[in-house]
Amino acid sequence: MNDVRIDDLPVRDELRGKSPYGAPQLDVPVRLNTNENPYPLPEPLVERIAERVREAARNLNRYPDRDAVELRTRLAEYLTDTSGHEVGLANVWAANGSNEVIQQLLQTFGGPGRTAIGFEPSYSMHGLISRGTGTGWISGPRNEDFTIDLAAAEKAIAENRPDVVFITTPNNPTGTAVPPETVLALYEAAQAAKPSMVVVDEAYIEFSHGDSLLPLIEGRPNLVVSRTMSKAFGAAGLRLGYLAAHPAVVDAVQLVRLPYHLSAVTQATALAALEHTGTLLGYVEQLKSERDRLVTELLALGYEVTASDANFVQFGRFEDSHETWRKILDRGVLVRDNGVPGRLRVTAGTPEENDAFLDAVRALKKEQSS
Amino acid sequence: MNDVRIDDLPVRDELRGKSPYGAPQLDVPVRLNTNENPYPLPEPLVERIAERVREAARNLNRYPDRDAVELRTRLAEYLTDTSGHEVGLANVWAANGSNEVIQQLLQTFGGPGRTAIGFEPSYSMHGLISRGTGTGWISGPRNEDFTIDLAAAEKAIAENRPDVVFITTPNNPTGTAVPPETVLALYEAAQAAKPSMVVVDEAYIEFSHGDSLLPLIEGRPNLVVSRTMSKAFGAAGLRLGYLAAHPAVVDAVQLVRLPYHLSAVTQATALAALEHTGTLLGYVEQLKSERDRLVTELLALGYEVTASDANFVQFGRFEDSHETWRKILDRGVLVRDNGVPGRLRVTAGTPEENDAFLDAVRALKKEQSS
Repeated sequence: MNDVRIDDLPVRDELRGKSPYGAPQLDVPVRLNTNENPYPLPEPLVERIAERVREAARNLNRYPDRDAVELRTRLAEYLTDTSGHEVGLANVWAANGSNEVIQQLLQTFGGPGRTAIGFEPSYSMHGLISRGTGTGWISGPRNEDFTIDLAAAEKAIAENRPDVVFITTPNNPTGTAVPPETVLALYEAAQAAKPSMVVVDEAYIEFSHGDSLLPLIEGRPNLVVSRTMSKAFGAAGLRLGYLAAHPAVVDAVQLVRLPYHLSAVTQATALAALEHTGTLLGYVEQLKSERDRLVTELLALGYEVTASDANFVQFGRFEDSHETWRKILDRGVLVRDNGVPGRLRVTAGTPEENDAFLDAVRALKKEQSS
Repeated sequence: MNDVRIDDLPVRDELRGKSPYGAPQLDVPVRLNTNENPYPLPEPLVERIAERVREAARNLNRYPDRDAVELRTRLAEYLTDTSGHEVGLANVWAANGSNEVIQQLLQTFGGPGRTAIGFEPSYSMHGLISRGTGTGWISGPRNEDFTIDLAAAEKAIAENRPDVVFITTPNNPTGTAVPPETVLALYEAAQAAKPSMVVVDEAYIEFSHGDSLLPLIEGRPNLVVSRTMSKAFGAAGLRLGYLAAHPAVVDAVQLVRLPYHLSAVTQATALAALEHTGTLLGYVEQLKSERDRLVTELLALGYEVTASDANFVQFGRFEDSHETWRKILDRGVLVRDNGVPGRLRVTAGTPEENDAFLDAVRALKKEQSS
């Protein structure tokens, strides 16, 4: 029995020889590898979560609200307040992390016989979930500075006629913001090629110097903005992703969502967090200035740094980035090697964590020049 | 904008004209339609959930344990204790409801170019999730009394050579238990046709007169038993499904699971519930005797009743089952019309709820005979 392995089971051919996605979860003093928010939730919010979950638990023998009406209403209010563009319950959908939102979008608009495109390097789950839903994946191009090469991107869309176009802004792992003109041009290119969905992944938008592209959904039923509470709300452990789009999109994903996908405790916890938006967005401001400090200091140390609108910074260049990753880890700081040649990514942590990281890379520089 | 509808979007062809799955969530005094456990969690467990979630919330800015090690260990202990067959962490996997477990299994072992079979009427999500994952769905036969017709089932397997075989025991919506000999014969038939996975869906097993088929996973790496905390644990709102199988199966589904799919609050709540197994299984005993009472009383009223090993009872026959459903609803009791011709399904509720239901159907009988 013990000698049976994955490949001895009748798994799909494309899964043979594969290994699961995921950053190493190592026990290290300073973890700056998964773009988590370093600030624990404030204690009054922790208490409010316990309170709302206690209330939900008294009814836990019943299925949760399948349509998460209260939660979607509060998310719509948050989006309206922060973007200035009014959206309502009918525009918003929520799921277990933006990964599940993306999976539902691909099950609805992608799938076997269809394709999706992203401009890489970008959030690798777009490609992985595409493959997981049988959607063909097309790796679109970027400029050397990691901005989107509009002409090349338009050409890739015209040639491949994808059914789903992913635009990540700010982009992960590079931190690069995509200007609204580029998104609009890509939307037009996508519609010209064939009616297709454009998914603007704004997981990190709260950390941006610029504004959300949410208002662009107006008059564009094939445009979807996806969001998460993992980063700005400091709630990676909650797994709450959501989208804003035309109500028809919200209706459509309900054709593929697993019934009662969003648990009553998840809904209760998210609702509690949405009551504390002010405090949480205060942490975001601190993280933005820490992110800017990381950029400045890394540049001062002579690193090449990609302009960042997110809560992380991509820096390089390294001849052997994995080797450098290892050396930083040896100094107690875990950053991320996303496989971008010559680059590493560091998440903006607390001032103390960022100091520890900067000390580590400073020491590295000294080591090299000595 | 308001005139844009689902079919105006570039949705997949097979989704056109479809509407979302799900029982109506009506506000009715007595809801016996979704096989929920009628007993709210005991107050000490509610407090323990609040306590464990408070603790988890203090670390909510971090991603949850991606592999849910503590939860899977406790689930393995529960399975070992209740089945007498020893399983460990490596045998167990958990996800957001057994629906997500099934989706992950189909993404791993089904998908485009592959097929799955179930013996219908059965749990309709098996077919729906198959279609959602691009897996071809084959509707296998049953006898008129809703038991599995072994010869016909073996023939259907030999002819169709499916990649995944679903066996639901006790079956939903009929309540029918499948004997271990039948499961073993179907497993052999499935392996003879081609190496394929057999998924034994035991969502309702705790309510059965018989034992779990869990021990059958020994020496059968292509056999999976799926379970849920929705029913016996009285936690439909929690969305916690799990499976037990050979460790290679657990490794394989990790190739398709969305990373960090199971939130920290879900893990914390499930762990709290697993501390109170004794009390919760006490409720199960009450529900089993109430289920048996429903069978006896419905038979005494002259209804045709399907033998049930679950927490619900299928009864009939009705010339127009939807009309009867409506009449029972008019008396304040919501049962389920699962689309089985001439039949309805009632969930075993509290003694008071069951009395209300029996009063309603008694009145119906009188109405008909007057």
